[in-house]
Amino acid sequence: MTDTFGVRLQERIRSLGPLCVGVDPSRALLEAWGRSDNVDGLEFFALSVLDATRGVAVALKPQVAFFERFGSEGYRVLERLLAECRDADVLVVADAKRGDFRPTNEGYAEAWLSERSPLRADAVTVSPYVGFDALSPLFSLAHETGRGVFVLAATSNDEGRAIQSARTSNDEPVETMVLRTVAEMNRRGEGLGSFGAVLGATRDAPSFDLATLAGPYLVPGVGAQGATSQHVARLFERCPAGTVLVNVARSVLNAGPERSALRDSAQRWRDDLASALA
Amino acid sequence: MTDTFGVRLQERIRSLGPLCVGVDPSRALLEAWGRSDNVDGLEFFALSVLDATRGVAVALKPQVAFFERFGSEGYRVLERLLAECRDADVLVVADAKRGDFRPTNEGYAEAWLSERSPLRADAVTVSPYVGFDALSPLFSLAHETGRGVFVLAATSNDEGRAIQSARTSNDEPVETMVLRTVAEMNRRGEGLGSFGAVLGATRDAPSFDLATLAGPYLVPGVGAQGATSQHVARLFERCPAGTVLVNVARSVLNAGPERSALRDSAQRWRDDLASALA
Repeated sequence: MTDTFGVRLQERIRSLGPLCVGVDPSRALLEAWGRSDNVDGLEFFALSVLDATRGVAVALKPQVAFFERFGSEGYRVLERLLAECRDADVLVVADAKRGDFRPTNEGYAEAWLSERSPLRADAVTVSPYVGFDALSPLFSLAHETGRGVFVLAATSNDEGRAIQSARTSNDEPVETMVLRTVAEMNRRGEGLGSFGAVLGATRDAPSFDLATLAGPYLVPGVGAQGATSQHVARLFERCPAGTVLVNVARSVLNAGPERSALRDSAQRWRDDLASALA
Repeated sequence: MTDTFGVRLQERIRSLGPLCVGVDPSRALLEAWGRSDNVDGLEFFALSVLDATRGVAVALKPQVAFFERFGSEGYRVLERLLAECRDADVLVVADAKRGDFRPTNEGYAEAWLSERSPLRADAVTVSPYVGFDALSPLFSLAHETGRGVFVLAATSNDEGRAIQSARTSNDEPVETMVLRTVAEMNRRGEGLGSFGAVLGATRDAPSFDLATLAGPYLVPGVGAQGATSQHVARLFERCPAGTVLVNVARSVLNAGPERSALRDSAQRWRDDLASALA
């Protein structure tokens, strides 16, 4: 791929809108959908979300935990979902929040970003706790294969504040350090970079000029978690068009398994977000 | 299981010694072992480490990233390793460093700590970046099933310092907040708790009295990463016997695939650590 992930995502958002639908096959949601809590229920759920939201959602964000709970069989379902998304030309952000020592991150990079991996996605979420610089194998392979990496900066839950707002030895909050470093990496590249940040919509604006990331944001916290499209629009008001990817999960998925209800729900969120962010 | 993970681990360490062997089937190590970088090589590597170190290592620590890089097929190999460890009565710490929002952590808890999961291990490593309190589904299920959780406090790599030594709003370093909170959770239980911390042996002593954790430590950084058995002994000198589980990976695994060489290497590390920590 010649374009960076950031450029591809930006083009798609400009034409389709900013909606990313979370694929969260938790036990509770499978039950709410009237499905058994097993790999058959998992597969039905995942493929139903893809089918109903195709052409509406610019991306899907499978939550890896809910596949991993079924072990290798759950991963087979995730691999099938990823393959069908590629066929359907739907972008996928694997929400894995991986992060480890540098040599170990080579393993995670291979898993989620290598051209030959059955788990390859367009982008993966990563966690900087073991060290931002330790993530370099993920950044390198993403750059090489035209894929993306979203680094956790500030998550949408209050419980994340203790660590994310702690102050580093430069006296800046951890979340700002993450955003600043992602921005520096993007600015060393060309165009809209492949490196993004996760920033919850429930947050106040951090002490970093969000318009200067030079890469995409992945934004959780909208819908069931309390933030509205207007919160997103305010938080990212000065960011370039096509750089804000907004995840909605429960508020779409609660529509249940019926295709048209699910699609209508996604469509309403897409339109609402597109109009607020226009 | 009636005993907590902490109690079981402590008994085993007292009889067998403190050595945990890392199962790190990276591309580089498979090559060094003369094996192909595929699932057959992966399986050979993992089962060889178990076979050679049985009765010497008290636990194995498979690095999940190196299985995940082969997708569902890699996870099938991990499931086989976990089953064979159960049969051989060898403890397993799944080094997954998972951590997410609270509802998502229910998925990770099911994956690694539920009695019915093919990936169930004796303990799992977790990352607190998305919120220490968000980890509660993992703590709850571990408590219920007699399993353990090791929370990343201070890792053995320098790259981890920026976040791990940042200061929270209570003006304590993040690593201290993690250690203190784990200790508080253990003290609410009975005996040696199920909740441990990852603390690199390459570290200076943190501003927390390590002897008061009331749970086990998982200690990376020994061998190839530079720390010696004497570093470990000094860092944990006041901790109760049987509470320090020391991981050695490359320095054992570099012995290669030949059973007796691998076993001798593990034996030397076990004896060296046992004598330093006695």
